[in-house]
Amino acid sequence: MSFPKVTILGTGNLANHLSKALEQSGIQLEYVYGRSLDKAKKIANNLYATKATDRLDFSQADAQIYILCVTDNAIAHLAREVILPEKAIILHTSGATALDVIEQADTDYGVFYPLQTFSKTRKISFDKLPICLEASSDEAEILLESLVKKLGAVPCFMNSEQRLSTHLAAVFACNFSNHFYSIAQAILKEKGLPLELLQPLILETTQKALEIGPENAQTGPAIRQDLATMFRHQELLKEHPNWQELYSKISENIAKGN
Amino acid sequence: MSFPKVTILGTGNLANHLSKALEQSGIQLEYVYGRSLDKAKKIANNLYATKATDRLDFSQADAQIYILCVTDNAIAHLAREVILPEKAIILHTSGATALDVIEQADTDYGVFYPLQTFSKTRKISFDKLPICLEASSDEAEILLESLVKKLGAVPCFMNSEQRLSTHLAAVFACNFSNHFYSIAQAILKEKGLPLELLQPLILETTQKALEIGPENAQTGPAIRQDLATMFRHQELLKEHPNWQELYSKISENIAKGN
Repeated sequence: MSFPKVTILGTGNLANHLSKALEQSGIQLEYVYGRSLDKAKKIANNLYATKATDRLDFSQADAQIYILCVTDNAIAHLAREVILPEKAIILHTSGATALDVIEQADTDYGVFYPLQTFSKTRKISFDKLPICLEASSDEAEILLESLVKKLGAVPCFMNSEQRLSTHLAAVFACNFSNHFYSIAQAILKEKGLPLELLQPLILETTQKALEIGPENAQTGPAIRQDLATMFRHQELLKEHPNWQELYSKISENIAKGN
Repeated sequence: MSFPKVTILGTGNLANHLSKALEQSGIQLEYVYGRSLDKAKKIANNLYATKATDRLDFSQADAQIYILCVTDNAIAHLAREVILPEKAIILHTSGATALDVIEQADTDYGVFYPLQTFSKTRKISFDKLPICLEASSDEAEILLESLVKKLGAVPCFMNSEQRLSTHLAAVFACNFSNHFYSIAQAILKEKGLPLELLQPLILETTQKALEIGPENAQTGPAIRQDLATMFRHQELLKEHPNWQELYSKISENIAKGN
């Protein structure tokens, strides 16, 4: 028995990466839906036998799995508007959106949230990628697990509350770290220096934290309470009250271990 | 003409890693100095023909290069107490300490600050590692450059002010990021989830920032002003006022682009 066909709703980075990864895993994609047919075509044209559509009526379609790859605030609306065939399942891909936002009367529904950041220009592998799953029925759980395994990814079942915490943790670990790379870049730029200077240090810091645990990897003036160095840093930041405030606050938290 | 011999003062992680790296680069180490002779011996015993000492009188020694691998607040004292032979150079290895802290009347002095985090358990390569250099004379600059190149590392001449800024940038990019990995770990742990879940996302975030620049890599609810998600995150953090405050402050800065 061949694997159920998939239809992707959405035309952003995730739609683009996920549709390619599904096809490479031997899963057939029936449709790519976009409000803009042109954008849907751009993705569909890179796939083997996939049609583009701007209509939400899939009542006569073959695909069993419908994956919403759209912004969080479009999920509920789209889940209400879409007309699914019998025995379909609809999935959203959001970390911060509860399962019941896409509750359906007649069909299964679920969550398929890949823990990764997708951008236009970078190749992303789904191999061994954790994918957070939640489903409305045992049958749907089995289908989701096999979908993830076909991708070579790692199924991680969790409830909506756990997923929101995972999303929040990702904001701290990734969005906020990236912002601090920006601050570091700006501090260096003021002295005519490039961020590349920190490249080996940044990579080692990340790898070390993941290997020995961040609680064992904390270094720097705050943890060793090197007040003289912290004072010098604060002096340097006096024209950047925003960064100075962050510096104080985070150094204090590091010292207190929280 | 063979390369001048080196003596290392200090017995911590940097002393340990640097002495091995120097020896592997074909540089001979004459002494390892430690206030604790036992600790000095532990490092010297792993080297080919290096003696351990707890005495600071090197007036009769062969080594020309003396590298202080000690904590910041021990640098000035040690630089005053050490008795060097003629034509020696003394170097400190601190990012946050100015060159003139080790000013010498009779000999050259300089800074050799490797931009890396060194820990007991992890192998660190000096290959292509940027090393921030500063020296008291042109002759000393030439010696420092050749020392760094012999290690396979990258010489980066900069003044004390630039070095302090580099050190501050490293605190934001590395120490503070690591603290955020700790917060992420704690948030996940509360829901019975491991930090490993975020591993591919953390690695991709870091690599992406370094490749396309952090200013082009910023994602997340703050940059797209997804207020609903930020509200949900804040709700989750209400029992952690410290993290909540950081979340608000950093999200605000990300939104304002500063």
